[in-house]
Amino acid sequence: MSASRDLHAHLIGQPGSRARINTPALILDRAAFGRNVARMAEFARGHGLALRPHAKSHKSADIARAQLAAGAIGLCCAKLGEAEALAAEGITGLHLTSPVVTAPGIARLAALARRTGPLSVVADHPVVVDALAAAMQGGPPLTVIVDIDPGIRRTGVASAAEAVALARRIAGHTSLRYGGVQFYCGAQQHIANLAERRAALAERTGYLSECIAALAAAGLAPAVVTGGGTGSHVVDAELGVLTELQVGSYVFMDREYGECDLGAADAFETALMVDSSVISANAAGLVTIDAGLKAFATDAGAPVVLSGAGPDVRYRFMGDEHGALIGDDLPGLGERVSLGAPHCDPTVNLYDAYHVVEGGELAAIWPVTARGRST
Amino acid sequence: MSASRDLHAHLIGQPGSRARINTPALILDRAAFGRNVARMAEFARGHGLALRPHAKSHKSADIARAQLAAGAIGLCCAKLGEAEALAAEGITGLHLTSPVVTAPGIARLAALARRTGPLSVVADHPVVVDALAAAMQGGPPLTVIVDIDPGIRRTGVASAAEAVALARRIAGHTSLRYGGVQFYCGAQQHIANLAERRAALAERTGYLSECIAALAAAGLAPAVVTGGGTGSHVVDAELGVLTELQVGSYVFMDREYGECDLGAADAFETALMVDSSVISANAAGLVTIDAGLKAFATDAGAPVVLSGAGPDVRYRFMGDEHGALIGDDLPGLGERVSLGAPHCDPTVNLYDAYHVVEGGELAAIWPVTARGRST
Repeated sequence: MSASRDLHAHLIGQPGSRARINTPALILDRAAFGRNVARMAEFARGHGLALRPHAKSHKSADIARAQLAAGAIGLCCAKLGEAEALAAEGITGLHLTSPVVTAPGIARLAALARRTGPLSVVADHPVVVDALAAAMQGGPPLTVIVDIDPGIRRTGVASAAEAVALARRIAGHTSLRYGGVQFYCGAQQHIANLAERRAALAERTGYLSECIAALAAAGLAPAVVTGGGTGSHVVDAELGVLTELQVGSYVFMDREYGECDLGAADAFETALMVDSSVISANAAGLVTIDAGLKAFATDAGAPVVLSGAGPDVRYRFMGDEHGALIGDDLPGLGERVSLGAPHCDPTVNLYDAYHVVEGGELAAIWPVTARGRST
Repeated sequence: MSASRDLHAHLIGQPGSRARINTPALILDRAAFGRNVARMAEFARGHGLALRPHAKSHKSADIARAQLAAGAIGLCCAKLGEAEALAAEGITGLHLTSPVVTAPGIARLAALARRTGPLSVVADHPVVVDALAAAMQGGPPLTVIVDIDPGIRRTGVASAAEAVALARRIAGHTSLRYGGVQFYCGAQQHIANLAERRAALAERTGYLSECIAALAAAGLAPAVVTGGGTGSHVVDAELGVLTELQVGSYVFMDREYGECDLGAADAFETALMVDSSVISANAAGLVTIDAGLKAFATDAGAPVVLSGAGPDVRYRFMGDEHGALIGDDLPGLGERVSLGAPHCDPTVNLYDAYHVVEGGELAAIWPVTARGRST
């Protein structure tokens, strides 16, 4: 049992039990979460897009099951360890969105492909394609997707010509299946203004269309064009080039996406938060809470106060274990406050469990199945 | 078994096996670590100081045992969950350096005090002292230390008069034992210049001496004066007011402390690192590695390249899962690089295990016993 299950299992289903959860605690609002899951499923269905949500955001088998039940065709994983952990929980339709390159990684991937159902992985280099093909000899064909760099220089092939060459290389191996292309515009997701985001995505998608045309001319038209994120999905649907969405953060929302105008789907709700308690209140205009930089990822600035303090109250990091709330209408010693994460994915990765709440009641404890599985 | 033990147990003791560990992986250099542990133990002994290293840095029962074997009198913990996890592994002499305030927390603390040996905790408010006393009725006396705020406004009483009042309150409860004072100068630890750090610490320690004089005048002279960190311990020993050191980061060192002139004990070595692999190499002057902001805490800037790339090569975060190495002498696709953490404590908290290496060989896998136990 996890530490949180040991501490809190007796609270499940008890009225008012959210207030008795030991803090800092990762909280998932079941109602808001459920509406987010349904809303994105409906969006994808309505636009004729396949939905393969990204598990790197939640790392949870329970959330993956909810997404599959709502119509998702599978889950994306950023790392092999995530895919292994979710596959062990019976999650199907897994797609690895980062190249698997090292010898130990390719051996693990081949073993995973042999013991699970269909699995796909991106590649961006012929040496890796050949290594994947060798590892899959005698097994079921592994689906390999050509990763096309949208200009980030993070992963992906750097030109249409390279995309064609790599697709041909994949198709030339009997132990592999050429599955299509991936094009993830990571740099455009958080452009706050919708019109600016639309223009940037349209320009990049123009380049993607050139790549697809080159592939088609070579007899390698992609069956799947996967990509998109919470920030881009409305525009991706308008542009009509992607066939499959990899959206992740929509299940939770966070401060970063809260500051973006997402367009038609603007109605996603904050479903993820961290409950924290005041542990010191000896200074004027400031109290100290038990959530610091081991409770929130710090790459995207400060958390926001959602409830439990006045609207003017601001959070400031106070080291590894503590945060300050600064303002006028502060909670008292031992009282609780609820905070929204600045960036959901790496914040979730700090916790072993979601405390799923319905109103003021702890309804369930869901493990963060693939926590720390960055390998 | 942990995921890392599943993947790597067969590599233990195999020559050259460090290069076969799946990445990103947290690495502990056993030789450098051992020298750091011995050096600080020798320093404390030589200066007549008790050593109670801070477990918030490492969260590891194995490292705690090494520190105790070298002469430490116990371990500090930042959070109750850390203390519970280490106590369950048989670690003794635990001191909690943050107030425990909430009702569920005080109940857990009382239960822990009843099932382990001597335990101490700080307090900074009379309401909490009374609640601790009530929870400990009928049990062995719990040692309570008065936390004095050194001016950070994070935790602690705000004046000598309040310190006296709180000590008197503790001493007035038969179920508590007044243990002394804590004074942790967190804001001074990372002043890079030794002379400036010495001046700042001397000024703050002057205030501590005033508090101690007031306590002594009230018949409450503290038996223990605990505090100090890796950045201050040389100056703390010179000033001669602390009786006990809470140093943490010295076991690992990190980029932040690497940039500080620590004085006589400057010779602590980098013992902690993250090994990572190149997973994409399609851009000029840049390769992408598999360690991003789920592999390093980001509160203190960027990691530094320790080995595997040229001296000019710089790291840049490229999102949750990836980093860029930028420069001339770059590793190739699938090759490895070793990186030093910008800030060790929250980086360790991302991982489930230390991969303890001796030269190029994996020698042991040590769990991060209290990982994520921020509650």
